[in-house]
Amino acid sequence: MDENSAELQQSLNSLYDELVEKSQTYIGYPNSQLLDNHNLSPFLNLTINNVGDPFVGNNGMNTFQQEKELLEFFGNLLKLETNDLWGYVTNGGTEGNLFGLYLARERYPDGVVFFSEESHYSLNKVVKILGLKCCIIPSQGHGEIDYSELSRSIKSLQHYPVIMNANIGTTMKGAIDNIDKIKQVLKENQISRSYLHCDGALFGTMLPLLEGAPRVDFSCGIDSIAISGHKFFGSPIPCGVVLTRKTNTHFIQNTVQYINSFDSTVSGSRDGFSVLILWQVMKKLGVQGLKDRALDCLKMTDYTLRSLRKISWPAWCNPNSNIVVIKKPTLPLIKKWHLATENNISHVILMPGIDRKKIDLFVEDLNLLKNVRPLRGEFSCFRERLYENPISNCL
Amino acid sequence: MDENSAELQQSLNSLYDELVEKSQTYIGYPNSQLLDNHNLSPFLNLTINNVGDPFVGNNGMNTFQQEKELLEFFGNLLKLETNDLWGYVTNGGTEGNLFGLYLARERYPDGVVFFSEESHYSLNKVVKILGLKCCIIPSQGHGEIDYSELSRSIKSLQHYPVIMNANIGTTMKGAIDNIDKIKQVLKENQISRSYLHCDGALFGTMLPLLEGAPRVDFSCGIDSIAISGHKFFGSPIPCGVVLTRKTNTHFIQNTVQYINSFDSTVSGSRDGFSVLILWQVMKKLGVQGLKDRALDCLKMTDYTLRSLRKISWPAWCNPNSNIVVIKKPTLPLIKKWHLATENNISHVILMPGIDRKKIDLFVEDLNLLKNVRPLRGEFSCFRERLYENPISNCL
Repeated sequence: MDENSAELQQSLNSLYDELVEKSQTYIGYPNSQLLDNHNLSPFLNLTINNVGDPFVGNNGMNTFQQEKELLEFFGNLLKLETNDLWGYVTNGGTEGNLFGLYLARERYPDGVVFFSEESHYSLNKVVKILGLKCCIIPSQGHGEIDYSELSRSIKSLQHYPVIMNANIGTTMKGAIDNIDKIKQVLKENQISRSYLHCDGALFGTMLPLLEGAPRVDFSCGIDSIAISGHKFFGSPIPCGVVLTRKTNTHFIQNTVQYINSFDSTVSGSRDGFSVLILWQVMKKLGVQGLKDRALDCLKMTDYTLRSLRKISWPAWCNPNSNIVVIKKPTLPLIKKWHLATENNISHVILMPGIDRKKIDLFVEDLNLLKNVRPLRGEFSCFRERLYENPISNCL
Repeated sequence: MDENSAELQQSLNSLYDELVEKSQTYIGYPNSQLLDNHNLSPFLNLTINNVGDPFVGNNGMNTFQQEKELLEFFGNLLKLETNDLWGYVTNGGTEGNLFGLYLARERYPDGVVFFSEESHYSLNKVVKILGLKCCIIPSQGHGEIDYSELSRSIKSLQHYPVIMNANIGTTMKGAIDNIDKIKQVLKENQISRSYLHCDGALFGTMLPLLEGAPRVDFSCGIDSIAISGHKFFGSPIPCGVVLTRKTNTHFIQNTVQYINSFDSTVSGSRDGFSVLILWQVMKKLGVQGLKDRALDCLKMTDYTLRSLRKISWPAWCNPNSNIVVIKKPTLPLIKKWHLATENNISHVILMPGIDRKKIDLFVEDLNLLKNVRPLRGEFSCFRERLYENPISNCL
């Protein structure tokens, strides 16, 4: 190894140590921490590219076979028949939302997108990119969309097709927009032209695994769903899955000789390595392993809520959610524990791999703060929902 | 290792062997084959996420520092001052083109996009996604845009701002649209509102490394450029770099509390691992190492052209290009050598890592075909450009 290489490796080692150190207190964003991808490293020296449509396939250096198996697995979870299913592995939830609303726009060019104020920040960007009109609907205090406000807005725009984005787990509070209630609103307003996309970044895979959780799948009449791969499934590389009914893609297919395929994805050239990562998780765990993992998350959520109750730190959680909303602590703690923070609340997300020991340390840190004045603002509007027990709602 | 794990590992081993086998004859798409990323595998067990704006940074699990160094490196190559530079590592050339034309649209909402018929297939998709009007311009036989046709079209749409996409290396023929000539066309037509984006997927990094090659950089007045990371630089994961002047981003910035940053990229959550791959190539090779690599590609291009001449297989190449356009062979050879093919032509791309031995085998295969009737069509229109010597034009 020459001097330059040695120096480079040393920089990488330092970076690695720094990231490992940070990962010890990484509890504020929805990334599974149970990653085991070392065996895939030989593939890093191959130029895999899942370019174009995974179902058309070609003879290239790709992992289309694994991608199709993965999509069918998600199709089974989400009750979409294989012969009616189309989708692909994206670069993340944003691309999935962009793709879903792109399909919607191609079906209804004059459609208006409705989504709640608690939606992921990508929604604003996606409607801007697509040049769509949108109507942002107020949420209820716990994060779920306000159906009467939704109805009022849809009524006022009654002559436009409705492109609805339902949040299957809002980013900050983990609230789930109710598909049945949304459909009821559409029916009451006699909307015949509608498209229902679900942003299921975190909960899209988890809900179908939890008994008694609200049903969000294609049998409920949704048109597309975007799920992140780097969240519950666990991938070190941001990625995701978008699923839709095959018929929705008719408006966007475009044969490209150069790649001998349809250019039916947003990205074109696509990461076949992430596909392997997700495929490996699917193969290793199967439905039962993933169910156990989802249940562990909810158990840890319950443990976190109980621990916070013991020190009287304001905290609450939506049913079937592993996101614990807490009163915002001080800036040093927000930084140390990587807490996503909006206004006067922060959250902790009990992702696979976060154990009691880590939560105990976090709660200890909070406990030391109890006499410290909170950073800004108050924590009152959610007080009535403190200490909900998600386990009792989902088992 | 339990039975399930053993079976899984065996599937992966088979897939790996199959991909390695394919890589032996992978000469038709622009992917560097000199990949050496094994040392980065420990990072695959960490949830790195370069979410948001690389220049705002945050305290999270990211590789923003490496991303900024990489962007400055590209800025230096492309004559964009650090204090005027903005950009990010994308998921590939398509996202870079989408981002560039998104910036253009935000500056000129009524702009019309002009690009040649030889442009990458992503251009059609990107203008569709962005809802932009476009005007597709005929190309000259060798792939460069036809400037008189461009002028005629711009004249007929004189009251609209011009959003120009210049191909810095067309996908199929490696032709370079001339920035000076495009600017001359804009001047002649008295266009005061224009935005110049460059699709530099393959040649964006190579041209600045080659003495005597056409100058395509920010000193020529371009507004943005998209470059692929999985092509000349070499990454097993599709990625890229998009660069622009900081002032162009004013229209799209959007502060997001949740990530404590600007949501100024298309993707939102972004791959910090690809950043490390590209950063490592930059650190290992430096400008001189990359120059050597680019020159090696052109030498191999010359060798390929000479070898094809010896067997009288029609072939030609644009100056400063490593793409050798050949008469389309039979389907089995197109499949075996992964030859991108359009109508009656195929191409071979002499990427880093493709050596004489591989080309000799390919030429041998073609030689056996000489008495075989070509698949379809004829190969006549390019005959006058056969056997151009790129080396003589660039050294």
